[in-house]
Amino acid sequence: MASVDVTPQVDNPATQPETVTVAEYLVARIDQLGGGQKQPIFGVPGDFNLALLDYFEKHPRTDWLGCTNELNSAYAADAYARTSKNMATLITTQGVGELSAINGVAGSMAERLPVLHIVGVASTAVMKSSKVLHHTLASTSSSYTAFASTASQVTSAQALLQSAEGAGQEIDRIIVHAITACKPVYLTLPTDLVKAKIPAAPLKKPLPNAHEIRGLVEADSAVFSDETEKQKAYEAVVDEIVKLFHEAKNPIVVVDACAIRYGQEEAARALIEKGNITFFDTPMGKGAIDESHPHFGGTYIGALSNPIEIKELAEASDLVINVGALSSDFNTGSWSGSLKDKKMVELHSDHTVIGYARYPGVPMRVILPKLAQALEKIAKADPTKSDKFIAARKAREAKNTSILEECKTKLDAPITHDWFWPRFGKFFDTGDVILTETGTSSFGILDVTLPDKATAISQVLWGSIGYALPATLGAAIAARDQGRRVVLFIGDGSLQLTLQEIATIIKLGLKPILVILSNDGYEIERKIHGETAAYNDIAHIDHQLLLKTFSPPNGSKQKQAVHESIQVKTKAELDKVLNDKAFASADKLRLLEVVMPRGDCPHALTLQAEMSAKINA
Amino acid sequence: MASVDVTPQVDNPATQPETVTVAEYLVARIDQLGGGQKQPIFGVPGDFNLALLDYFEKHPRTDWLGCTNELNSAYAADAYARTSKNMATLITTQGVGELSAINGVAGSMAERLPVLHIVGVASTAVMKSSKVLHHTLASTSSSYTAFASTASQVTSAQALLQSAEGAGQEIDRIIVHAITACKPVYLTLPTDLVKAKIPAAPLKKPLPNAHEIRGLVEADSAVFSDETEKQKAYEAVVDEIVKLFHEAKNPIVVVDACAIRYGQEEAARALIEKGNITFFDTPMGKGAIDESHPHFGGTYIGALSNPIEIKELAEASDLVINVGALSSDFNTGSWSGSLKDKKMVELHSDHTVIGYARYPGVPMRVILPKLAQALEKIAKADPTKSDKFIAARKAREAKNTSILEECKTKLDAPITHDWFWPRFGKFFDTGDVILTETGTSSFGILDVTLPDKATAISQVLWGSIGYALPATLGAAIAARDQGRRVVLFIGDGSLQLTLQEIATIIKLGLKPILVILSNDGYEIERKIHGETAAYNDIAHIDHQLLLKTFSPPNGSKQKQAVHESIQVKTKAELDKVLNDKAFASADKLRLLEVVMPRGDCPHALTLQAEMSAKINA
Repeated sequence: MASVDVTPQVDNPATQPETVTVAEYLVARIDQLGGGQKQPIFGVPGDFNLALLDYFEKHPRTDWLGCTNELNSAYAADAYARTSKNMATLITTQGVGELSAINGVAGSMAERLPVLHIVGVASTAVMKSSKVLHHTLASTSSSYTAFASTASQVTSAQALLQSAEGAGQEIDRIIVHAITACKPVYLTLPTDLVKAKIPAAPLKKPLPNAHEIRGLVEADSAVFSDETEKQKAYEAVVDEIVKLFHEAKNPIVVVDACAIRYGQEEAARALIEKGNITFFDTPMGKGAIDESHPHFGGTYIGALSNPIEIKELAEASDLVINVGALSSDFNTGSWSGSLKDKKMVELHSDHTVIGYARYPGVPMRVILPKLAQALEKIAKADPTKSDKFIAARKAREAKNTSILEECKTKLDAPITHDWFWPRFGKFFDTGDVILTETGTSSFGILDVTLPDKATAISQVLWGSIGYALPATLGAAIAARDQGRRVVLFIGDGSLQLTLQEIATIIKLGLKPILVILSNDGYEIERKIHGETAAYNDIAHIDHQLLLKTFSPPNGSKQKQAVHESIQVKTKAELDKVLNDKAFASADKLRLLEVVMPRGDCPHALTLQAEMSAKINA
Repeated sequence: MASVDVTPQVDNPATQPETVTVAEYLVARIDQLGGGQKQPIFGVPGDFNLALLDYFEKHPRTDWLGCTNELNSAYAADAYARTSKNMATLITTQGVGELSAINGVAGSMAERLPVLHIVGVASTAVMKSSKVLHHTLASTSSSYTAFASTASQVTSAQALLQSAEGAGQEIDRIIVHAITACKPVYLTLPTDLVKAKIPAAPLKKPLPNAHEIRGLVEADSAVFSDETEKQKAYEAVVDEIVKLFHEAKNPIVVVDACAIRYGQEEAARALIEKGNITFFDTPMGKGAIDESHPHFGGTYIGALSNPIEIKELAEASDLVINVGALSSDFNTGSWSGSLKDKKMVELHSDHTVIGYARYPGVPMRVILPKLAQALEKIAKADPTKSDKFIAARKAREAKNTSILEECKTKLDAPITHDWFWPRFGKFFDTGDVILTETGTSSFGILDVTLPDKATAISQVLWGSIGYALPATLGAAIAARDQGRRVVLFIGDGSLQLTLQEIATIIKLGLKPILVILSNDGYEIERKIHGETAAYNDIAHIDHQLLLKTFSPPNGSKQKQAVHESIQVKTKAELDKVLNDKAFASADKLRLLEVVMPRGDCPHALTLQAEMSAKINA
């Protein structure tokens, strides 16, 4: 059956018809979010979403990116949201498709990314009948409710369209929720409603700009009786923090995950500069503010801070202003620091905490600029002149330098993590998008001082192995038009879970650098438990053949991607590659396989694994 | 950290200690189900299940089969349960692992397969604390309940172990439920309970034999006041069916999905033989009884029955005894038949339906043998002598013969579905395990008359594309010791979702025949909607490189699997391969890539796609 004709897109409000189809409405809303830029739509086709896909395929500013499976699509959408700072859209089909994607969507829930998950479902007529349809559980009681119930566990809001009436409002509600809460939402669209007509009028008023409403408190009215009360609460909170700041001798700022998620990097930077404050980041907040900034104290991870002078510097503080804290085990060195015992101010997306006091409805996006302004007037000594600060900076610099120097004479030696990460640190450049997989990579990157405007992507909290390769697809789509390099680090154990997404990277002509750490199995698991156990081994995969396997043959109608596969086994070989200007230019897709000895891993992972093993016992 | 020592397995009841660890108890129960045969355990390691895996790795009769990802593991477990007729075991880790597997588990729920899904979760101490752990949603309210709630939507029973007390009983309850209900169940085991001690005594009494309790009604006591009442109900049902049979002129039996799931193939065969009845199967019941049996009328799929004489023969009946009906759209030609208007007896796993009367607690496993015995005494004319029967059989034979004959003169022609399936039909042999993927394959196989003792595996109801390749791993494990061939048919669109499981097939030295139908995209979707749409295209994959990419290099410590990749483009080429004795012997792993023209598909799919498009509209 041929594709149906799709009526024209709703582009010009002046010529807008009085009604549009539900599909047109949905596509128009997603288009509006892009501000004129092409919006990628990630997913896999299925018979219950095909009619909807027509609309995305035909619209000039939406780009259907069919992935190789649904989990990979969800991972790609998550990373697109991280890199673009926009909402990502994911489309799957009822039951089979949506459940395949659910781990990726749950990851966006845990790590707080705005993703609109649209699921094409059976027609309303079939759902009302007692008929048993494919892609259902064949249970009359739960065939069409089980999936929505499942989605409600891992998304922040749901809209299950059942009729044309109110469909536009539901679409608007769910999209605004995704952006403000920075979390995934779930929208089901029955096949027979795709072309149902609804009023076009609301489209004349675009939804609020995504960047402005991130972290906006929706429930203001539930917290404050009126605007005056709200402003008074804001003032009270700022006054209280200023008072603490006044009393403190060594205030510090810790920039964490939600500073990035809610787009408050610049506001946090203004705070540390105007207040003249030393700042730290965390594994999940890494790179939020330029790590070469003179006020940067290091990446604070409790006992895992490396060098340990970073921990000492941070914990010498008597007031901690924490921006967007997310205190998970892997983000805090399993809570091994003592910052929690200090005077603590926590600025969150929708509330503030000062000591034991909680201030609901007081968000960081309001408090940060007010605070920066207030602190500017308080003269403090230059914190970077303190002995501890100087000691920490020297130790950081010395650590990397000594490792790199030491190895200059042993370049034929196998590539070890202690050398690998500082060496790659020298390769990184302003604006790089750097993805690291849960495992040796996500711990290794902690030893790197990130360049300015870098985007560091890693699932430190959710930790789903296999995430980073499809995430590279999503990140590369967002980075393509910005002229940014994308570099992925992934181990061979994690790569096997999702490797087919390389086919899509090739199909789309993307040019990330895929660095595969080939160390013969699940190294992170071995460190935690079962060092020699067979269950931590993996089946062999020839990484040098991957790009070829997923490339079209000569003469294919599919775009012929230019790519290169490289394997290095010694420090000298890797050094040569990293010094190569063509390699650094990222002018084609490259797969760099780095053979590393089994058993070697970054310093932080060794410590974390020991802690995790104890916690599990 | 090195693997911990594992205390000896509980093998000999005489020397059994008084207590065992929870892990030992669980392993012992799974071992007992195998009746001395090695039990495969499918899954992926994760830090919350590693300590448990030690016990499976060390036990002499459990075999840890680490798959390349969790969804693939779940698919493999599902197909193992289908082929072995035993419960399958799947192990994943909290959150990330279990959610990745959930689509596969839901498939087992929809299609009714007994799968024990064990999830290694965080320690009870951490769960009771407010700490935010990795692999959670970082929500204090739902971090540890969201996943269990999710599982409850797609599994039939759950056991969330919280303490050593009662753990053994919970394990027993959940396993017995999986087997009797033929559905997946969910068991969470916190890391700190793995080595907790529990009484060993219950292990002295093995659980009931799996084959004997499949479909056993658990809730008997809720339906019948006592044993006498139950027996009287059984008799009343049998008498009623016998009366209907007496009155009928053309009774038929339709053997459907649940006859296979509940192991009632032989009982159904006895019924049709003793009652001298014509029988039909369905897409989901295909092969339940030998399709070369003289009483076989054909595969009944309503309007999709091919040739249509099969439909005419079935619908000339005046009494239908349906064994294990599952009336989903793809199993019935979208309910296009008129059998439902006949006098209908439905024998289900836990109830019986006669016309409009429902008899709860009266299962097919009791009624089938009683009915066979009763019908033996009723003399009926030989149904296979009827004009309609003869016409249907001739039409079936003629269809295949004419196609095969016609093509003898055009062997350089492209390979089309109308020729392909009858030709492969001649290749199949007694006992073959034949897997077909949802799409052209699952519809193409409907045109094949299956040999005796064949196992046909396809997700006709759940229809999750990508299922069949990992399912081939699970089926091949079960078939290995039985000396059975395993043949997979999968399209290039579906293959891309899960292709890395080839690495595990190679690692384990399995030798299935992997037939890849290379037809340039999602053909089933194109037939339903979007014939020329780009969203039904896929990224190119070089199928001839797949086995090489997933093979270990020479000199690897991993077993070097012998394999062969073949590509055919014409009927002559395929004919030659299928006539090759070495190929037919399945003495090594073979990948047979069959290049087929885009747009061609089996007869039944063309019709089904038209129906589905109408239903979606």
